[in-house]
Amino acid sequence: MSNLTSLVEQQFSPHTLNKFATLMAAGNGYLGLRACHEEAYTEQTRGMYLAGFYHRASATETTELVNLPDVLQMRIELDGEIFTLLSGTVLAYRRELNFTNGELCRCVTWLAPNGKRYQIDSQRFLSAARKSLLCSRISITPLDGDAIVTISTGIDATQTNSGRQHLDEISVRIFDQLYLQGCYRTQDGSNETVIGSFCATPPEACISFSAKNRRLIQHTSASIANNRPFVMVKTSWITSSLEAGYQTQTDSERALANLMECVAQGYDTLLAESTQTWNSWWQRSRVVVDSQNAQDQRALDFALYHLFAMTPTHSERCSIAAKGLTGEGYKGHIFWDTEVFLLPFHLMTQPNIARQLLSYRWHNLPGAQAKAQKNGLQGALFPWESAWSGEEETPEYAAINIRTGLRQKVASALAEHHLVADIAWAVDAYYQATCDNEFMRLRGVTLLVETARFWISRAVEVNGRLELHDAIGPDEYTEHVNNNAYTNYLAHHNVERALHYQGKFDVPDETFVAQAKDFLHRLWLPQANDQKLIPQDDTFFSKPTIDLTRYKQHQGTQAILLDYSRAEVNEMQILKQADVVMLTYMLPWLFTSQQLEANLDYYEPRTIHDSSLSKAIHGVVAARCDRVEQGYQFWQQACLIDLGDDPHSCDDGIHAAATGAIWLGAVQGFVGLTVEQGELRLNPRLPQAWRSVSLPFCWQGEPVRLMLTDRQLSISTASSKPLTIWLGQKRLLLQGTQSLSLAEFVTPFSASSAKQEASK
Amino acid sequence: MSNLTSLVEQQFSPHTLNKFATLMAAGNGYLGLRACHEEAYTEQTRGMYLAGFYHRASATETTELVNLPDVLQMRIELDGEIFTLLSGTVLAYRRELNFTNGELCRCVTWLAPNGKRYQIDSQRFLSAARKSLLCSRISITPLDGDAIVTISTGIDATQTNSGRQHLDEISVRIFDQLYLQGCYRTQDGSNETVIGSFCATPPEACISFSAKNRRLIQHTSASIANNRPFVMVKTSWITSSLEAGYQTQTDSERALANLMECVAQGYDTLLAESTQTWNSWWQRSRVVVDSQNAQDQRALDFALYHLFAMTPTHSERCSIAAKGLTGEGYKGHIFWDTEVFLLPFHLMTQPNIARQLLSYRWHNLPGAQAKAQKNGLQGALFPWESAWSGEEETPEYAAINIRTGLRQKVASALAEHHLVADIAWAVDAYYQATCDNEFMRLRGVTLLVETARFWISRAVEVNGRLELHDAIGPDEYTEHVNNNAYTNYLAHHNVERALHYQGKFDVPDETFVAQAKDFLHRLWLPQANDQKLIPQDDTFFSKPTIDLTRYKQHQGTQAILLDYSRAEVNEMQILKQADVVMLTYMLPWLFTSQQLEANLDYYEPRTIHDSSLSKAIHGVVAARCDRVEQGYQFWQQACLIDLGDDPHSCDDGIHAAATGAIWLGAVQGFVGLTVEQGELRLNPRLPQAWRSVSLPFCWQGEPVRLMLTDRQLSISTASSKPLTIWLGQKRLLLQGTQSLSLAEFVTPFSASSAKQEASK
Repeated sequence: MSNLTSLVEQQFSPHTLNKFATLMAAGNGYLGLRACHEEAYTEQTRGMYLAGFYHRASATETTELVNLPDVLQMRIELDGEIFTLLSGTVLAYRRELNFTNGELCRCVTWLAPNGKRYQIDSQRFLSAARKSLLCSRISITPLDGDAIVTISTGIDATQTNSGRQHLDEISVRIFDQLYLQGCYRTQDGSNETVIGSFCATPPEACISFSAKNRRLIQHTSASIANNRPFVMVKTSWITSSLEAGYQTQTDSERALANLMECVAQGYDTLLAESTQTWNSWWQRSRVVVDSQNAQDQRALDFALYHLFAMTPTHSERCSIAAKGLTGEGYKGHIFWDTEVFLLPFHLMTQPNIARQLLSYRWHNLPGAQAKAQKNGLQGALFPWESAWSGEEETPEYAAINIRTGLRQKVASALAEHHLVADIAWAVDAYYQATCDNEFMRLRGVTLLVETARFWISRAVEVNGRLELHDAIGPDEYTEHVNNNAYTNYLAHHNVERALHYQGKFDVPDETFVAQAKDFLHRLWLPQANDQKLIPQDDTFFSKPTIDLTRYKQHQGTQAILLDYSRAEVNEMQILKQADVVMLTYMLPWLFTSQQLEANLDYYEPRTIHDSSLSKAIHGVVAARCDRVEQGYQFWQQACLIDLGDDPHSCDDGIHAAATGAIWLGAVQGFVGLTVEQGELRLNPRLPQAWRSVSLPFCWQGEPVRLMLTDRQLSISTASSKPLTIWLGQKRLLLQGTQSLSLAEFVTPFSASSAKQEASK
Repeated sequence: MSNLTSLVEQQFSPHTLNKFATLMAAGNGYLGLRACHEEAYTEQTRGMYLAGFYHRASATETTELVNLPDVLQMRIELDGEIFTLLSGTVLAYRRELNFTNGELCRCVTWLAPNGKRYQIDSQRFLSAARKSLLCSRISITPLDGDAIVTISTGIDATQTNSGRQHLDEISVRIFDQLYLQGCYRTQDGSNETVIGSFCATPPEACISFSAKNRRLIQHTSASIANNRPFVMVKTSWITSSLEAGYQTQTDSERALANLMECVAQGYDTLLAESTQTWNSWWQRSRVVVDSQNAQDQRALDFALYHLFAMTPTHSERCSIAAKGLTGEGYKGHIFWDTEVFLLPFHLMTQPNIARQLLSYRWHNLPGAQAKAQKNGLQGALFPWESAWSGEEETPEYAAINIRTGLRQKVASALAEHHLVADIAWAVDAYYQATCDNEFMRLRGVTLLVETARFWISRAVEVNGRLELHDAIGPDEYTEHVNNNAYTNYLAHHNVERALHYQGKFDVPDETFVAQAKDFLHRLWLPQANDQKLIPQDDTFFSKPTIDLTRYKQHQGTQAILLDYSRAEVNEMQILKQADVVMLTYMLPWLFTSQQLEANLDYYEPRTIHDSSLSKAIHGVVAARCDRVEQGYQFWQQACLIDLGDDPHSCDDGIHAAATGAIWLGAVQGFVGLTVEQGELRLNPRLPQAWRSVSLPFCWQGEPVRLMLTDRQLSISTASSKPLTIWLGQKRLLLQGTQSLSLAEFVTPFSASSAKQEASK
């Protein structure tokens, strides 16, 4: 894949250090590395994270994804001047992240305060082929006479999570007078990480070492002739006790051997190897768009790049954090984002990863069961935020309330239960796309039944009907309501699917069957009113509205909470994000196209979109209503959540779900590729700006490639078995490569309207 | 005291950030605050420390003086430009520490990258009158048009000791929508600190607050008209659970009330109050020198300023750390430096502080007894390094050995036992200067006897004589030797004094008396050879010598350890610091002037002076040999240990002992004021550059003032009782103010030569 886009930073600014450190972060699902500069800046949060490597420092603190010792930082002195882009003059600057292989390159021409110019170029990548491997190379060329260069770099364990230290130094060593190695243990003693580094320097360089104050450092200095580059390649190998069978002594020796082997190969060979892995990944993942707006392709490449970088494919005990492995936002915790916004991409490209993400939940069932029990309920109440153990990790307190001076409690862990049904929804989606009977038998059915049992126990009876009280839907600006539509419908779907799959794969449990049937029969599902509007909850329509223009202009900042308390916001028709609209996205077959439209029109003006999960979903729903251009607008805005101009919107990490939503918006919204009742459906509606779109996907074990223009569909499958697909309202059986004229099939949306047609 | 010198930094340099952060540090013995700039720099170690507030983070780490949450830092944006002296152009810069009252002032004219100039002035002080109080003021004036200023500052608990976090956040609060308060607890739960801050801002300023990632921050922004200053005064109150009867709720409320009271008074009033305390302190402490070299007075003022700043006078449970309260070097631990280099100053100016420093050891007797017992010995083996508990705190490992890749064990805690006798030496000195019978009865005798019992148990019998084996003297480049002269003589003195004072103040313990007498009788005291040289230990003279010129040129850096291993250095005649010379300084009456001279001449060329404790002692001994100008050279060099040009020599804190030694050098060396057998002796020998010197001191409860020129002595006492003083070899009784011509008394040194005379 040589025609991928890239992300370019054209000039250095201290104001956007963290934005670009996030956007350009490296990752291979095992490790994540913020795109920090070699030289340090006070405003820059440096960070390297290892999937699943969490620690809770004390009872009053929250479990965090540990910011590992820093191997990237270099203190560079050029003729006695400390190199920093804040001083002197930056004559030329360019930084580029190549999405093809994740290599980050920076080229700087620096006029130092001493009046001399230096060319300082650096490159780095985290290997996609060897997940523990980080390579970096720096080249310094004096342009105005001979120079003395001094570089101090090594393994810097002064790194913290905002001042919180999680690691004790167990040992720091230098092997063969060249290889640095540090072993660090989490303070609770539960995990270790072993980090090794080697700096290849020119033979004339003078080197020494120091080990002090948590820093194991190699000091390298050399005289360089004018116009001759000084090149240093730093190779690092990072591993941890999360590896199966880890044992400090053996694994630190093995880590050293692995590092030595990599050092022997050199930067270019290692990069080529990594590039190959990336290439084959892009082959089976990339969505290619021919759009009038070049940024559309870049947004898709950006999103997919990060989807690769954030996804731990090496272990079922890891899942995808809300900020991936790019920053400390949300402490590295895992939310419903994974199942609803990220899993679909993997399901359609590498379903084994979707299986692995669901297995993460399965491994964490005991924690979910314990949380349910603690709340006097049955089944599995998955934690709103989870880390390694599956215990509830949501922080108890959030921001300070200036008026009372006290911190406010976080309600999500107490009442935002829809996550439970979202996981069940994903299990169902997984089976539909894979027909993976084994998974369902071993894990899927258990996940469905345990989550269903939770809902059954959570329902309360009011005048004969079952209701779900004191809930929080996806819209977190409306808390502690009864019969949140999203929650009730998803819970119903959860129980229905549990009943279905238990019947299919297991000996039905009579008690459960009876309870489930009763629940499905009696659970209140808020119905559309005369205006086709589904009430978000029992009281929503009775609340006043206010003009939200000002807050929508600053969406993503929660500016409304500066003017109103949470309690006040709760008593108005104000949405943080899609809720009923989200519901119509998740279970589209339950609603008519007219209902979709009416609810979109009603709720969107009341939605600030303060959550990054909101815009793209609106885009898909708008497209499904055949409002393609409105959908495209939403989608373009969703693409800017991280890539837009706000210098601080992603300081503490990428909006992982938003990257998944970029793919969802394109594939579910415009390509119109969805799954319903086990069947693939295609309802293409490309925005005017898009001349064509092509994508690979995987359906029930077979790879499929699809190419769309506004008139033509080309679809290829290598399978001997024909592919069944609904194109508009026609069910087709396709084999090999076929080209079809869309005119024959194009109709307004969609499954539900088809259903209406059918029922007439 | 209005004619004090000051310390001025004329230009900003990123290379000397930590040097000046140390040199210009504020302190009041309770708190210490590094002189960091308001704006952050990656190369700058910020730090605030509270005497006695230690924590050990894990079993593998060392107890550290905790770097407290930062209340000083300010993030300043001027018209969107982040203020840092690294960017733009610094048109004018001046920072001055006023020794009169410890106020630190900085004036900067900054040409920002946006082309606009701003005047940024700031001041700060730690109150000498209210030890918990820190005041700072910043004034920003736009010089090229109206401006928008934004300042973010508050309580920043991301502060660490080189990445080690010691504190958990218990609560962060905002009271009355204005007062910030954070409570933090050490991770082991043993201590708490409460920190409150208030920012007084102009009424037109717009303020908001945030509490995230361990930072409780006030964000202040305002529009300022051209040439109009924007002024913000920040008042902070820092207290801790080390206060007697501390209770979180009550004391955090009291802290808030104290902060409010200070805020009501304002910067200038609070500074005036503090200045008054400083004034009276200078009155009873300052040494005034009329020297041809102006830096002599500055060195003395600098030394005394820091002696005030570093000395915790509020609690007997605290003593003076090797870096005072100015940095993290030696982790805030307490060494023999306190008794030998720092206590004499206090003893001669405020003897109650000397008593308190000795009481610190008395409180820690149980730890010292436990350490002795652990080593199979009796009495009290004080820890080489101690913190709060009196346990041994010396780190187990020091720097890494590049060849083996392993860290090297620190030997001091195992064998550097002379500290025990140094403490006893200080107890004796204390009694001689104060005749404080009560202290001796309650604490002093116990200290003497317990330390004596240690020595008695430590001695080994070799052919009938007692020896002290496997010792390390002050010279740490010679380890694990037998009969280190310094140690043996001081141990002898220790036991002799114990016997003496037990007899004087206590019912003599027969067993102890017998053991002590036997010890004194049989302990081997290395004798001077034909060349009048006292062997440093049993094998020292048998070792080879090398040319040390190169290492002496880089003294203080331990450069020799880059060329030789410790084991190799150990086998040569190489001294880190004064050892036999130190002995002749400590117990001058035991040696003749000729012996002093011979040993000085022999050992000094073999001494690298890699320890800051070395030079000034050589200066005193040289002066006592009537080599005044040589002594003056040593003293001047000693004055440069922190104040010299080396940009990094005091990065991690002031050399506390060296400040004491500056006073010692002047007072014991040139003024020639010493105490021997309970009597005051004066043998003035001023360097040629000194026209006069005057100083106050305290003798047996009475204040005395002394003024010297090369010909004249003026001495005043307010006491009704005549002052007994030996001037040269004449014993005088003085009352009121007397002027004496020195010609009548001046002779070559001194007590011991006097003794020789007498014995003829």
